[in-house]
Parts: sequence; structure tokens; C-alpha cells
Amino acid sequence: MWLFLVFVTLVFGALAGLYAWTVYQKLEESQIGHPRVAELSSIIHEGAMAFLKKEYSWLAPFVGVVAVLLIAAPGLGLGSAFAFVLGALCSATAGWIGMYVATNSNGRTTYAALAGMPAEEKKSAKKSVDLDKAADSAEAPTTEAPKSEGILSTAAGNALEVAFSGGSIVGMVVVGLGLIGLAFSYLFLNDVTALTAFGMGASSIALFARVGGGIYTKAADVGADLVGKVEAGIPEDDPRNPAVIADNVGDNVGDIAGMGADLFESYVNSILAAMAIGAVYSFTSDGEALGLWGIGFPLFLAAWGVFSSIVGCMMISQKAPYAGTVRGIVAKLPGMAGVVKRIEDGDAAFALRTGTFVAGGLMIAGTFILSIFFFFSNAFNVFLSVTSGVLAGIIIGIVTEIYTSGDYKFVQNVAASSDTGTATVVLSGLSLGMMSTGIPVLLICLSTLISYYLAGMFGVAVAAVGMLSITGISLSVDAYGPIADNAGGIAEMSELPEGVRKITDHLDAIGNTTAAMGKGLAIGSAALTALALFVAYSQAAHIDKIDIMNPYVIVGLLIGGMLPFIFCSLSIDAVSKAAGFMIEEVRRQFREIPGIMEGKAKPDSNRCVEISTHAALTQMIVPGVMAIAVPVLVGFLLGKEALGGLLGGAIVTGVMMALFMANSGGAWDNAKKYIEEGHFNGKGSPNHAAAVVGDTVGDPFKDTAGPALNILIKLMTVVALVLAPLF
Amino acid sequence: MWLFLVFVTLVFGALAGLYAWTVYQKLEESQIGHPRVAELSSIIHEGAMAFLKKEYSWLAPFVGVVAVLLIAAPGLGLGSAFAFVLGALCSATAGWIGMYVATNSNGRTTYAALAGMPAEEKKSAKKSVDLDKAADSAEAPTTEAPKSEGILSTAAGNALEVAFSGGSIVGMVVVGLGLIGLAFSYLFLNDVTALTAFGMGASSIALFARVGGGIYTKAADVGADLVGKVEAGIPEDDPRNPAVIADNVGDNVGDIAGMGADLFESYVNSILAAMAIGAVYSFTSDGEALGLWGIGFPLFLAAWGVFSSIVGCMMISQKAPYAGTVRGIVAKLPGMAGVVKRIEDGDAAFALRTGTFVAGGLMIAGTFILSIFFFFSNAFNVFLSVTSGVLAGIIIGIVTEIYTSGDYKFVQNVAASSDTGTATVVLSGLSLGMMSTGIPVLLICLSTLISYYLAGMFGVAVAAVGMLSITGISLSVDAYGPIADNAGGIAEMSELPEGVRKITDHLDAIGNTTAAMGKGLAIGSAALTALALFVAYSQAAHIDKIDIMNPYVIVGLLIGGMLPFIFCSLSIDAVSKAAGFMIEEVRRQFREIPGIMEGKAKPDSNRCVEISTHAALTQMIVPGVMAIAVPVLVGFLLGKEALGGLLGGAIVTGVMMALFMANSGGAWDNAKKYIEEGHFNGKGSPNHAAAVVGDTVGDPFKDTAGPALNILIKLMTVVALVLAPLF
Repeated sequence: MWLFLVFVTLVFGALAGLYAWTVYQKLEESQIGHPRVAELSSIIHEGAMAFLKKEYSWLAPFVGVVAVLLIAAPGLGLGSAFAFVLGALCSATAGWIGMYVATNSNGRTTYAALAGMPAEEKKSAKKSVDLDKAADSAEAPTTEAPKSEGILSTAAGNALEVAFSGGSIVGMVVVGLGLIGLAFSYLFLNDVTALTAFGMGASSIALFARVGGGIYTKAADVGADLVGKVEAGIPEDDPRNPAVIADNVGDNVGDIAGMGADLFESYVNSILAAMAIGAVYSFTSDGEALGLWGIGFPLFLAAWGVFSSIVGCMMISQKAPYAGTVRGIVAKLPGMAGVVKRIEDGDAAFALRTGTFVAGGLMIAGTFILSIFFFFSNAFNVFLSVTSGVLAGIIIGIVTEIYTSGDYKFVQNVAASSDTGTATVVLSGLSLGMMSTGIPVLLICLSTLISYYLAGMFGVAVAAVGMLSITGISLSVDAYGPIADNAGGIAEMSELPEGVRKITDHLDAIGNTTAAMGKGLAIGSAALTALALFVAYSQAAHIDKIDIMNPYVIVGLLIGGMLPFIFCSLSIDAVSKAAGFMIEEVRRQFREIPGIMEGKAKPDSNRCVEISTHAALTQMIVPGVMAIAVPVLVGFLLGKEALGGLLGGAIVTGVMMALFMANSGGAWDNAKKYIEEGHFNGKGSPNHAAAVVGDTVGDPFKDTAGPALNILIKLMTVVALVLAPLF
Repeated sequence: MWLFLVFVTLVFGALAGLYAWTVYQKLEESQIGHPRVAELSSIIHEGAMAFLKKEYSWLAPFVGVVAVLLIAAPGLGLGSAFAFVLGALCSATAGWIGMYVATNSNGRTTYAALAGMPAEEKKSAKKSVDLDKAADSAEAPTTEAPKSEGILSTAAGNALEVAFSGGSIVGMVVVGLGLIGLAFSYLFLNDVTALTAFGMGASSIALFARVGGGIYTKAADVGADLVGKVEAGIPEDDPRNPAVIADNVGDNVGDIAGMGADLFESYVNSILAAMAIGAVYSFTSDGEALGLWGIGFPLFLAAWGVFSSIVGCMMISQKAPYAGTVRGIVAKLPGMAGVVKRIEDGDAAFALRTGTFVAGGLMIAGTFILSIFFFFSNAFNVFLSVTSGVLAGIIIGIVTEIYTSGDYKFVQNVAASSDTGTATVVLSGLSLGMMSTGIPVLLICLSTLISYYLAGMFGVAVAAVGMLSITGISLSVDAYGPIADNAGGIAEMSELPEGVRKITDHLDAIGNTTAAMGKGLAIGSAALTALALFVAYSQAAHIDKIDIMNPYVIVGLLIGGMLPFIFCSLSIDAVSKAAGFMIEEVRRQFREIPGIMEGKAKPDSNRCVEISTHAALTQMIVPGVMAIAVPVLVGFLLGKEALGGLLGGAIVTGVMMALFMANSGGAWDNAKKYIEEGHFNGKGSPNHAAAVVGDTVGDPFKDTAGPALNILIKLMTVVALVLAPLF
């Protein structure tokens, strides 16, 4: 029976891989007919891959050392080490492929936008010498573009198609490798507890990737903006700015590799936690444990999630194989004919949303059927547990959107506070972030209580799996944003017509609402997964109770509660330090390279890439190692109950700080954009200057410390879980 | 036997009161010989008293309603209601007397500084018409000042003497009323559990006083600074600024009434927690409970602390009765003759430090003797528990000082980050605050583990009592700061010679190091007291275990962990909102009152006082009520274990946020001052502007939200403790 589980998991993992491969083949077919765009794309590609190579070469010894320690540890041994290394390898591979594809899609997206434009628009290029030639050569693919077949016949549509193809490859590779890795670990170990080392490998890489990526991207971003835009007064992504390449590389390093590793970790750990709990959970107080039924259910949920995601992607993208067939089938469903028509007519935002909803709908239906198949009389309990988790995640996403979007009064109030100066912008953003912890935490609590009531801790664990089961499509939507963003950067640096940039900006904006839902699911699932892993730890460590009246547990709680603060402090400092180096370097180049400001001399972009790379790698060490070392130390010194307390404390402050920092950062970002749209005296006003400060404060909040906290709490918990036999 | 405890407590409470009364009589003797100073002092006095009157009239119905609910509650009844009302009354009375004395000392301090100056200095008044007359009439007391008898024969010394007298009255009234109130409650109830309602009364008033006071003072401060200093470019405390009076009133409302109520609450609750635990604690696992020995020990510690504090104050102040006699005795001790000589020679900073150390030394010696008397064979365990707590508190104070003083690299780094702009100042301050949670939390953990190992939870509880036992003198030092600060404000508004302002600024600075120690003790004791109250709650609610593997406890932890964030957000918003009203009003007056900027027309200060008063009162309601209502709700809806989890979560994030916010705020404040001292381009530079933003962000951090959090966690715990019979 367990071999059957392995087989099914492998098949659906392979299916995701196959889908990604097919889309990639189609993507490769399209050519970049503009030499400057192609050149920039390949510079960014090389910078990004060079960073990854270096990052992995730094992480390899770390993985090796931990693997040796695991082999040497009594009660763990080779199996755990194998799973750990495999988890790290799969995560790294997913990051590698994702980055490879994303940096191959950015230039193609730019070119698709350019090529799809009307001829007269193309001629309005700012000053590029290559443009006419480029536009001419571009005409061929444009006219060949299958207007009636594709959902998107406009320039924006072409570009969306390319960018989304890139994003969907990232998404599918992550879930595919996740399932394949899990299947292999399970095949070789056949022990759900040892299997959790796979999650530890994934989490370790994820934390380093998130922190390193976050430092890289923000150092380059701040350096490019502060010296370029503010001091020298040149536009964003101006080719004269030596940090611009690093900035564009950084978008990939942070938002593709970092986010990919992050979601790989979330996905894998939610499944693992549910498997570990499912193996021993029983619906009756004296009854039999679920055993393989409990282990298999999360795997089947995930497998079905892959299928649902693929169908969702096919609704969005014509590049997908059999997209036409699938749409045909969907169109035959009651009420769906109009929906498919609207997608085919080219409503891009609607297509993204529909694709996600179709995947979600399929997922819910599948969950219901799987619940019946696996749990007979308890089917409804399990199904409702999953549903409560998914609903909570979606509402958290909506609440997050309301707190951080310029369309609502919260962000508008932050923008309005720029009337009384910079300090009030900072204060109102901080206050908003703190307040925004309220509803999500209550929703997490509600979902925990409902799931627990219905199906015990197994219910909580599968709720998290449910939230993440359609990671395939939600990561596709998430990852397409940075690709579009990068495409815009390339357009700017290639001095293409302004319309191209407008298209890419528009594309970037379209996915935001859908991405917000994904973010909500990520936050909610992080909390639930951490709780499930925490319970799995207490099972594995044979702890009867973690009583907070016990002073060791109290001490653990306090130390655990402190760690997220220390971690955030280290991350923020790392970004500041790295940004400081970058600022100095850009200032130096502007000062020392003659003719750079007139566009006669080329800036030394490589130096900036090196600085970001070096800073990211050196600065990620301390926070990363701390996250692994402190739980181990506390476990050995103060015992397993204290370690339980530590995990509890870390989850509590970690969840709060993650929500606080992510939402403060998001609100400042959009308050600035809101002012740039012309409100409160608009761009260039003192209001705008105040909002820019808020945005800069928010950068490490939302892109470095905040998202890394979600990984931190799971990494600490999974480390404790893997090492539980030692305490 | 218990009547004997009541008697001793009453006697030492009365002793503190007697001491305060005698010092007050001496203080009253000195006259203010400068009409403008006297006038301003009385305006501030009236504004402050009017605020208190209004605040109490708002709080009275609240106290009444809660009292009625307590009477009606099954298992509580009249006794609890009586203790609750008495606690609220004593806190309010301590606040009232403290404010009364402080606002009567500020003008006297100004005048003492003026009168003590050499005659030629006095003539250098800026432009005051009254000054010559004032200086003449001032000569009489100056020449009469007993040069050889007093420790302080200079102008600064005279002023210090007056300001410290005021401060010591505040300190002694707080501890005196604390002991007297406790004694009466104990006399009438003779039940340590019901007695905790006294602490609930004290905590409720403290939270409202801290939050209301914090809002009041920061609204006035920001309003006065932003429009006066920044927009209109007039100096601080300029009489033309209509918000200046409100600002000076605010210093008293926040730093005297707020801090007094805060320490009253800390003091009383630490004693109550130790009494509740001591009553049932046993040194042997099967032995007899300590009973009255456990109840009496914290009371005796506190009583001895009063005596120690009084001796310490006598070392500092000549106005104290029998000061000469006490000093004579101390001088005869080995090695102390030189110390007394140095004090008598007029080294003010040394005097403050010595007074505190003498009190501390006496306290430690007394603790040792009391431990032997109370606990025979376990004496050393108890003594070391107390000592570990006190040491932890002192080191926390030192660490806090290192993180927030301009003399060390941390604040200097924040100042240095102004080179790269406002955002980096904000980020480095936030990062510093987060990092500063580390060592204090580890020290709290260490002290908890040691005390617990030595004397169980009783050890933890008495460690907190030990930390706060010399509140009498440490609050004296704390409270003298704002009196000196106010004296400076009056000097500025009266347009006295610059030397007077310099003296008061100097005085303000002298007490800082000593005050830092007091702050450390306050933070450490808050954490330990909260833990002790928490354990007392679990005893009172008959909870076996609060197991964080129980989902109700997890949910409680998460909700509890969230509350400090919501509370901080509400507080920050309240300050912003109130400051906004003030800014508009000051702008309006500058615009609409003709001749105001030329000094020809008087500003409407009353309007500003009204605005601050109204804003403080209306905005304190929601955070205050939330702190009481949420634990009650969770207790009723989710049960007593979930409520236990809530308290645990609130303590964890509350301690972290309190440290983070207080230290970030302190660091920004001193980074600004460091730049104003001439570093990093000094005052008026862009660096300075960036630091001012940091300081403004820090204002609600360190003066509103941060300190209120210490009360919040204790209030929630004591509410749970009092209502425990209901759950």
C-alpha cells in the first residue's frame, strides 16, 4: 500500500514537471528580435545564475556538515541525512530552474510587448539606434501571432502570455520537485518521522535563500534609487546607473529564487506535518491510528492540487498543451461558457482570476471526494477542516489587501499623514502594521479551533495542506509579477518606447489581487504548519505536556519570543550595511568614471553585482545559523519542554512580527504609489519625499525580515522535530 | 500574628508619609521671589490639577461600575470590591499628591537656581522687566543659604535640593500609600486572594494614567515642537508658543502622575503576588505551606525598603529631618567618612548615586537578616533569590543605558546613519530596539531559573519585590528629573538668564544614570511580577496545567501575543490624532491672533491645555477597556486554560515590545541630542533633521506605548487573578 502512495506522488510530481517542460519548449520557441533587449536579458541571466552558483557553493559545506552531524547523531543516522540532503538539493534545484526560466522570460516579455505594438508606436522610441531595425524584424512574429486562437491578442496580451508562461514553469517546478523529492525520501526511508529531515533541508535552504535574496535585492534597490533617483536625479532603471543591473538581478534573486525556495519549504513542510500527525492520529479516543490513510491523504491532496493547478493554468495560458481541449470541456459546464468566452476575448485580469478560481473549485471538489474515499464516516469532518483553513487563508488575503492597497482608506491615511511630515508617515505605517495583526490572528485562531474540533490536530495539519495544495498556480501568479517587473526594467534600459514600460507596469499590477490571495494562504499556512510541526515535535520527543507554569517552559517561551526580534534586527542591519556599500560604490562611479552621466562611458555594473552578491552571502550567515543553533542549544541545555516553550514563543511573536512587518512595508509602498498617482500634491512634493522615506523603511520589512520570519518559525520547529530523538 | 503584619506595614507606611510631610513643610518655607516664575508655576499647577480632576471624574464611573460588577459576581463580593476601590483610590491619591507637590516644586527650583547665581549673572537677563527686582529680592535667601551645613552651596546645588525634595515626596507618598492601602485591605479582608483586587484597582488607574498621560504629553510636545520650533522657527519653550504651557503641564501629567501611578502599581502588585504565592508555597514537596511567614516576608521586605529609602534620601538631601544625624552615623562606618565628605562638599551627581547605593546596601543587609528570621534553614535560598533578581535588574539598567545613551556606539551608530538619510535613522533605531530585547530577556530568564531553583515560584516573586523594595528612593530620583525639566521650561518662558536654563538642563542630566538603574528594575520586576501573578492566577483558578499542546491554550497564546501589538497601534494612533489637533490649533493661533509673533498679544494657552486634556481622556478609553475586557471575554468564552495561554502570550510579546519600543525611542532621542552636541554636522544640518524625525517617531514609543505595556501585562494578569473564581 505505501508503495502505491509513493507511486501516485511520483506520477503527479512528474506530471507537474512534464507540464513545466512543455511550456518551456513553447517559451523557447519565441525569439528576442531586439539585440539590446537580448543582451540585457542575458546580462541579468548571467548575474542571477552567478549569484545562485556562489550561494550554493557557500551552502554546500553547510549542508555537508549538518548531514555528517545527522549521520553521527544517535537515533538519527543515514536515513535522516539522506532526506535532509535531498530536501536541500530539491529546493536548490527548484530555485535554479526557476531562476533560469525567469531570467529567460524577462527579455522575451519585453520583446513580446514591443513586437505586439502598432508600428507607429514602435517608431516613437526615445533614442535607441537599434530600434527601427528591431521593430522591423519584430513585425514578422507580430503578424504571425495567432490572434483568434490566443486569449490575448494585444501587445499586453502577448507579454502576459510570455510572463505567465515563465511564472507557471516556476510554480510547477516547485510543486513537482516537492512531490518527487517526498516520494523518493518516502520510498527509501518508509518512516514518516525520519522523512521530516527532508523538510529541514528544504527549510534551511529557504531561510538562506530568503534572507540572502532579500539582502541582495534591497541593497541593490536602495543603492540604485537613493543615488540614482534621489541624488543624481535620473529616472528609475536608467542605463547610466551602475546599480540598475544589480537591481534587476536582485528582483530575480529575491522574488524568484527566494520566493520559490520559500514556497517549496511551505508546501513540503505542510505535507510532512500532516503525514507525521496523520500516521498516529485517531478519530476515536481509543481507536486505531489512521496509519497509511493519514499519511496518504495529504499526499493525495497535494497530487490533486497539481492536477487542479494545471487545469487552472490552462485556462489562463494558450501556450499550455491541450489548453484548447480543457477550455472546451470547461465551457460545456453550466454557466462557464460566458466565462471562457470572456477569457478568449482577452480580459487578462479576468483570466488570471478565473484560472485561480477554477483551480480552487476543482481542489475543493477533489478534497470532498478524497475525504470520502479516505475517511468514510469522518469525511465531512476532514473536508470541513480543510475548507475552514482555505477560507481563513483567502479572507486573510483579502484583509491583507485591504490593509495594504491604495484603494482603501488605510493606505490612504498613511499617504494623508505625509501632510504632517515624515515622522507621521512612519508612525502611521507602523501603527497600521501592528493593527493588521488582529484579524488574521483571529482567523488563524478560528480556523485552528474549528479544524481541531472536527478532526483534532490532523484537521489543523490538513487545513494547512489545503491552503497550499494549489501552490502550483498561486506561485505561477506570484512569480509572473517579478518577470513583468524585470521586463519593464529591460525596456527602460533599452530605451524602448514608453508604451512598452506602461504595458509591463500594467501587467505587474494585474496580478496583485490574485497574488494577495496567495500571500494570505502563505501566512495562514505558515501558522498552521508551524503548529502542526510543533505538535509533531511533542509527539516525537514523547512530551506529555508543555506546561507554561513550568519555569523552564516560561524561559523557553521568553527566549523563543525574543528570537524573531533579534532575527529582524539582524536582517534590517544586514540590508542597511549592504545598501551602504552599494551607495558608496554608485557614488564613486558617478564621481570617478568620466562621461558616465552623459551616457558616453559604460558604468561598471559587474562591481555592483559583486557587492550585492558578497553582502548577501556574508550577511545571511548569522541569522541563518542562529535559527538552527539556538533551538538545538536550548534543547540540550534546558531540555525538551523548554524547547517546546521556545517553539511556542517563536511562533507567537514570529506570526505577529511577520504580519506587522509585511503589512507595514506593503502599506508604505502603496502609500508612496498613491501619492505618485497625483494625490496629496503628487510626485516631487514634500509629501512624496516623506512617503519615499516610509517606503525605504518598509523595504527590509516586507522583502527581507517579514517573509523570512514565516520560514524561521517553521525551520526552528522542524529542526526540533528532526532532532527530537536526541533530547 | 496577622494583625502584627498589618501593624508593621501600617507603621512603615506611615513613616514614609511622615517623611514626605516633613520634607513638604521645609519645601513650602521657600518662597518664589520672582512674580513671572510664580505665575507660570501656578498656571502649570492649575492646568495639571485640572487635568487630574477631569481624569478622575472620567475614571470614577468606571471604578464604580467595576466595583458593582465585583459585588454582584459570585465568589467575589463586597471584599473584592472594597479592595479594588481602595486600590484605585490610593493610586489616584498618590498621583494627586505627587502632581500637587511636583507642580509646586518646579517654580521653586527655577527660583533657587536664579537666586543662587552670582549677582552679575543675574543681571544678564534676556529682556525681562521684572528681573532686576526679582534678583534683588532674591538676594536675601541666597545670602542666608547655609553654605557649610548644606551639601549644595551653589546655584545648581540649591536647585537640586529643591527638585530632589519634590521628587522624594512623590516617591515616599507612593510607597507610603501603597503600604497603608495594603495594610487596610489586609486588615478588613484577611484573605490574600481577595486582596489582589487592591492590585487590580491600582493597575486599572495606572494604565489609564500612563496612556492618558502619555497621550497628553506627547500631543503637546509634538504640537509645540513641530509648529513652534520647526515651522515658526522660535526656540523651545518660547512664551509666544500657545502649546508651551500644555507641554509643561504634559511633562507633569506624563512623567509625574503617569509614572507615579505606574510605580504604585508595580510596587503593590509585586508585593501582592509574593503574598499570594507565599501563603501556599512550601520548601519541601510534602511539607507545610509557609502561610503567614510567606505572606509576611514580602511585607517586611517592603517595610525595610521604606526605611532604607529614607536613609538614602537623607544622604542626598539636607532638607530631610535628622539628615545631619544620619550622615554622622554613616560617616563613622569604615570607609564612609570620605564619601560623606564628598557629598557635603557639593558633588551632586555623587550624592544621588551614593544615596541610592546606601539604600541598596541597607536593603540587601536587611533582606539577609529578614530571610534568616523568616526562613531559618532556607534563608540563604530566599536571600539569593532576591539578590539574583536585584542584580538582574541592575544589569538590565546598565544594558539599557548602553543601548540608549549617546556615550556608547549604539546611539552613535544611529546618529551616524543620518549620513544616508532619514530612512536609515529610522531603520537603525528600530533595529537597535529589536536587538536590545536580547540581553534583558536572557537576564530575566536567568534570574527566573535561579530564583526558581532556589525557592520555587516564591523565589521569583520575592525577587521582584526585592527589585522594587527601594522604589521610595528610585522614584525620588526618577521624579526629580521632570521637575528640573519643568523648572527649565519656566526659566525659558520667564526669559531668565541663560545660566538658569543651563543649570536645570544639567540637573536633568545628572539623574539619568541613576534613573536608568530604576528603569531596569522596573522592566525586570514587571516581567517577574507578571510571571508570579500568572502562577498565582493558575493557583486561584485551580488549573493543573496550561499545556501549549492544547489548542485552546495555543489560541489563547496567539490572541494574547496579538494584544500588545493592537495596544501599541491604538496608543500610537491616539498620539498622532491628538498631536494633529494640537498642530492645527497652534497654526490657527499663529495665523489668527494678531501680534502673537511679536510678543504683543498673549497666546491662548488654555485652548491648548483643553485640547490635550480632551484628547488624552477620549483616546485612553479604548486601549484601557480592551485590556480589561479581552481577558474576561476569553476566560468566559474559551475557558480558564485559554485565558492562561492568553496571559502567557501577552507577557511574551508585551515584554519584547516594551523593551523594543522603550529602547528604540530612547536611542533616537539621544541620537538627536548627540547630533545637537555638534557631531555629524550638528544642529540645523540635514543629519539633524533626519534625527528629529527619528526622535518624533520615538516619542510615542518611549513615552506612551512602551511604558504602558509593562502595566498592560500586569493588569491583564491581575484581572484574571481576581476573577479566577468565576472561570
